[in-house]
Amino acid sequence: IEIDTERGMVVVETSDGMLEQSYGDLLIATGASAVVPPIDGVEREDVYTLHDMADGKAIRDRIEDDNAIERAGIVGGGYVGVEMAEALEARGLDVALFEMLPQVLDPFGEAVGEAVAEELISQGVDLHLDTPVEGFEGEASVDAVRTPEGTIPVDIVLVGAGVTPNVALAEAAGVPLGETGAIAIDEYGRTSVESVYAAGDCAEMPHAVTGEPDHVPLALAANRAGRAIGQTVTGGPTPVGSIAGTAAVKAFDLEAARTGLLDHDRAKAAGFDPVSRTITTTSRAGYYPGGSELTITLVGDQESGRVLGASMVGEEGVPKRIDTVATALHGEMTVNELENLDLSYAPPFGPTWDPVLTAAKVLGSSLG
Amino acid sequence: IEIDTERGMVVVETSDGMLEQSYGDLLIATGASAVVPPIDGVEREDVYTLHDMADGKAIRDRIEDDNAIERAGIVGGGYVGVEMAEALEARGLDVALFEMLPQVLDPFGEAVGEAVAEELISQGVDLHLDTPVEGFEGEASVDAVRTPEGTIPVDIVLVGAGVTPNVALAEAAGVPLGETGAIAIDEYGRTSVESVYAAGDCAEMPHAVTGEPDHVPLALAANRAGRAIGQTVTGGPTPVGSIAGTAAVKAFDLEAARTGLLDHDRAKAAGFDPVSRTITTTSRAGYYPGGSELTITLVGDQESGRVLGASMVGEEGVPKRIDTVATALHGEMTVNELENLDLSYAPPFGPTWDPVLTAAKVLGSSLG
Repeated sequence: IEIDTERGMVVVETSDGMLEQSYGDLLIATGASAVVPPIDGVEREDVYTLHDMADGKAIRDRIEDDNAIERAGIVGGGYVGVEMAEALEARGLDVALFEMLPQVLDPFGEAVGEAVAEELISQGVDLHLDTPVEGFEGEASVDAVRTPEGTIPVDIVLVGAGVTPNVALAEAAGVPLGETGAIAIDEYGRTSVESVYAAGDCAEMPHAVTGEPDHVPLALAANRAGRAIGQTVTGGPTPVGSIAGTAAVKAFDLEAARTGLLDHDRAKAAGFDPVSRTITTTSRAGYYPGGSELTITLVGDQESGRVLGASMVGEEGVPKRIDTVATALHGEMTVNELENLDLSYAPPFGPTWDPVLTAAKVLGSSLG
Repeated sequence: IEIDTERGMVVVETSDGMLEQSYGDLLIATGASAVVPPIDGVEREDVYTLHDMADGKAIRDRIEDDNAIERAGIVGGGYVGVEMAEALEARGLDVALFEMLPQVLDPFGEAVGEAVAEELISQGVDLHLDTPVEGFEGEASVDAVRTPEGTIPVDIVLVGAGVTPNVALAEAAGVPLGETGAIAIDEYGRTSVESVYAAGDCAEMPHAVTGEPDHVPLALAANRAGRAIGQTVTGGPTPVGSIAGTAAVKAFDLEAARTGLLDHDRAKAAGFDPVSRTITTTSRAGYYPGGSELTITLVGDQESGRVLGASMVGEEGVPKRIDTVATALHGEMTVNELENLDLSYAPPFGPTWDPVLTAAKVLGSSLG
């Protein structure tokens, strides 16, 4: 496929020769692909990535078809790595997870990383943090993961090293990319080439806190932008919206979620003076049975008092609590305004002061 | 006890005579009391109200001490009535609940009322809607509830007819009440009498949507206002905040929650042109096991597009989803802004479009 932006044509090579299709408006929705890192032996059999249904089915079939597959190595402690650790343990495999950073779920911050690491270990995952993978050993098929710490035998490997936007088609057509490497768009999803739009995992989106373009390829923003562009090109101009980097993941019995700016360096680069506080409280009123610990990190700006981001981990009620903070981010609320929200209270669902409010109270006392 | 606002004195009658205590600042935190409606026979034995720990303990002791108490009548289908129906069923009693309105949980709107009524009935509660209670029959002790439909035998009665603010002390001291019947305060909790503050269930609070004083006696606002006044009188002026009427209740296996203005008449009285939409969707991604139905009603203003209120009912994730709308209310967001929030998504926790977002999309297409 090629895009000829001069003539307003999409050119497709088929078995019957070249087909041309003219366009009035064109949407590039080429998505993203799983990163295949340049690790020695990554081409061996039984080394998988997981990005679409076909990948998932291939991994499942391989495990179901061969009872000798008992040990799985997972490279990368992001969403895919953590979720697949649970899925593979549930299928009875022994799982070893290798993460080159000092924590899993790096975009969720340190407190979440620590809690999820503990959970992975308690669920039987052999967790290797700070551990770069140097190679996949074996003949045709992988039989071990080589690290600086030693070589760990495995029967199958899943590489979850993130995704990269599919921008070759856009680049070849002269559609400019942004600094993130994804396709640059304006608030209506328009690229800088006339009548060419881009949406989804291949495109940037404006960040609700910084206002700058960012690339956080997740389902809701992709879905929303596609719908918005559909409305725009059919005559009802609709902005594609913005992202706050809001995300959630289940890790065995834990729920983790994040929103906004958590990393201080990144917040500083965006012109903020970030202050963080982390508290641990309970998911229900103290006397109500079945509650559990919730840990929340809240980040605010010293000067303006604005809420910048939050992350949370616990056994219940985590993602929807992060949504409260995400809403506050979109509303450019201050930490003090967050503290003063009239949130719901009943003993089965939370303490009188929801953990989000308590975190805001604690952080607020440290701000201007 | 009396307050002498002229002299800045609290006067207390004790067994040792009158004690006087001078004050620099005075906080009236007299709370509220359970309403005892003028029902024939309400003074009979085994007719209870439930407002504090002692009430709860008395009811529990009575049931535990006398095995002949097998049938409970509950008057009122508000929080207390619904929660006590569950508690008494759990103790093995047969429960009949009488509500004079056409629905239970009236402040939560019709859709919640219907779902909770179905749940009460399916859990074995003998539910009588549209049924005013005319009297409590019996000799010393109650043995039946009399209604226009007939007389239902009971061994114990709980009256949950709401609360009334305790304002006698304030009134006697000349502290003005507001239109709601609770003590009028300004944004710092000050009454119109110098150095006299009021907070909690005895006082009004400004409503986040209407800006007008309201009386919604719930725990969080009381707790927050008390702390704020404590800070104010010790030199750090701190507003008491506002309320959005946010509330949650568990009804057997259902969770229900509400925030803001749901009632159209009330919204109109506040100067809005309310439009409501009710949708039913799922609590998790469609393919993820364990999800259940969620029903949400969202109310917006036709002219400004502002979010005015919401209610929700379902088996999981309800109160914290209402908190997202409560946050939007405090931020004076429009329905369109609500629809465009970057909320968290992962299949175990919700569909790609959270039910709140879907409701905003549906309502938004009916607005302006």
